[in-house]
Amino acid sequence: MSKKFNIAIAGATGAVGIEMIKTLEHRQFPTKNLKLLASKRSIGKTLAYDGQDIVIEELDHDSFNDIDIALFSAGGSRSKEFAPSAVKSGAVVIDNSSAFRMDHDVPLVVPEVNPEAVKRHQGIIANPNCTTIILLVVLKPLYDISRITRIIVSTYQSASGAGAKAMEELSMQTSQVLENSELTIDAFPHQIAFNLFSHNSTIFDNGYCEEEQKMINESRKILNDQSLQICPTTIRVPILRAHAESVVIEQERKVSVEEANKILSAAPGVKIVDDRSNNYFPMPIDVNGQDFVAVGRIRDDVSSDKGLSFFICGDQLLKGAALNAVQIAELL
Amino acid sequence: MSKKFNIAIAGATGAVGIEMIKTLEHRQFPTKNLKLLASKRSIGKTLAYDGQDIVIEELDHDSFNDIDIALFSAGGSRSKEFAPSAVKSGAVVIDNSSAFRMDHDVPLVVPEVNPEAVKRHQGIIANPNCTTIILLVVLKPLYDISRITRIIVSTYQSASGAGAKAMEELSMQTSQVLENSELTIDAFPHQIAFNLFSHNSTIFDNGYCEEEQKMINESRKILNDQSLQICPTTIRVPILRAHAESVVIEQERKVSVEEANKILSAAPGVKIVDDRSNNYFPMPIDVNGQDFVAVGRIRDDVSSDKGLSFFICGDQLLKGAALNAVQIAELL
Repeated sequence: MSKKFNIAIAGATGAVGIEMIKTLEHRQFPTKNLKLLASKRSIGKTLAYDGQDIVIEELDHDSFNDIDIALFSAGGSRSKEFAPSAVKSGAVVIDNSSAFRMDHDVPLVVPEVNPEAVKRHQGIIANPNCTTIILLVVLKPLYDISRITRIIVSTYQSASGAGAKAMEELSMQTSQVLENSELTIDAFPHQIAFNLFSHNSTIFDNGYCEEEQKMINESRKILNDQSLQICPTTIRVPILRAHAESVVIEQERKVSVEEANKILSAAPGVKIVDDRSNNYFPMPIDVNGQDFVAVGRIRDDVSSDKGLSFFICGDQLLKGAALNAVQIAELL
Repeated sequence: MSKKFNIAIAGATGAVGIEMIKTLEHRQFPTKNLKLLASKRSIGKTLAYDGQDIVIEELDHDSFNDIDIALFSAGGSRSKEFAPSAVKSGAVVIDNSSAFRMDHDVPLVVPEVNPEAVKRHQGIIANPNCTTIILLVVLKPLYDISRITRIIVSTYQSASGAGAKAMEELSMQTSQVLENSELTIDAFPHQIAFNLFSHNSTIFDNGYCEEEQKMINESRKILNDQSLQICPTTIRVPILRAHAESVVIEQERKVSVEEANKILSAAPGVKIVDDRSNNYFPMPIDVNGQDFVAVGRIRDDVSSDKGLSFFICGDQLLKGAALNAVQIAELL
């Protein structure tokens, strides 16, 4: 691939934006020019890319002239406002927000799962929710050998999913608890230090929150299986940047632990961490900064004759967001 | 009840032992004399009970003369060594360790669930594992209206379950991470600060760890239902003293959310915390020091036509251990 691309990152100063820059660099993406876009208050600041200091510009409707690929991670409302302008300027938008994910004309892509969907794009490609990406990277190879009919998943989600400010709040609040001083509770509605709580997104009439409904809808769309049954419970835990998920699946044909291990050991983007004798399994601190999704505790679901159970961990900022977006760009 | 009892606490200086003393006081248990027993290194220290300073004595085979009820929380090996001596001295032993739980002659009791089992005791009554107690307090009333056939549960277990030293390690290690200094990893095999990991108990051949196998075996024994199917995943999280559990159940007859709410709102030891409009659900910091088990996120399992899903939180040291033991003593 000798062609080089003009790339823009909208939301370059956010937690995911920063990782997008690092990921482009790390994966030696064929970048001609990199344009960093953010809100007014960051204009004039610089961020390093490939040995250069790049001056941050204001995200605007005119920002996308000459841009080939625009990576958006500036929140849903900014995506809705500016992505159409980027498309009009001729850029392909890869959007990390939930703004367009369920739009019929917008492919929702995990490169290890449904790379072929990229071809259908009409200017915008959506990056799925972090919890969905991390889950599906592990589930897809198992789905391919025997259709998965039901998923029961409980998440252990890090602060990074709520942005850089939330990560800072976890650190600061933790210090405050240890020093017995007054707590700053701002980025989250509840204390996050030494605490956990149900994901603070809107609760729908059926009792599921928006984060859980995203996992259901997005998994069905990505796997192209509307009959897939999913029961998610999404919980925020006092972890900085990697998500974990405890998963039970039921399949049409019972897949053995041995078969699952064999399939997963050859699966792209997956690393088996399942050392029973040393009690070593996937942990957030081990996947921080890593591209793979770790899976372990792979065992029969002893409560069912169709099930498997396992525990997964993935870096929310990388595979859950920035890396997946750059991988989509690579498909282009 | 005008009769007063001579009580001994074996393991009085541990995290659970301390809570046992507080719980006896708080519930105004009819105590004549309280004897505090611990290992050699604590002899001569004092702990306050009901306005008195009680001098700690060494746990020994002769410690139980005149004792009516002996609360043991000094680990399984000490229970095995000293509980028979206590029984020989005429005491009833309420044992918080796993040493006798599965013995046929030893009742395993959660007072809200199977108080009648206490009568069968032959000197020893066992206190179940903390995760089992907290789960069953919520499940029993639902089981009574429609038999539960399957439970899928993922836990979020606090450091307190591994004792006072583990709680101190979580606090200390968290400071060390924030100060970027070297970590003390001693009470747990892995970093616990800003991390989580699979419960560090022995993994059996079927891939389940001892903590998970306890939940299966103990739940079946307490509910007297060997056909109950349970798939547990037990995870340690950086929380100080309350456990949380994400639970999906299947029942013979589908129980509606309304019915479940009605039953649980009248259930002993249970508090419904399920404020969807304010996104307020059970949280560890809210149940610290509380006697009740909080349950919320009560909703249909959308992946099944027989299921319900909910999220529970309970103080591991109280309902998960000390309180349950004192409640058993009250039954006597």
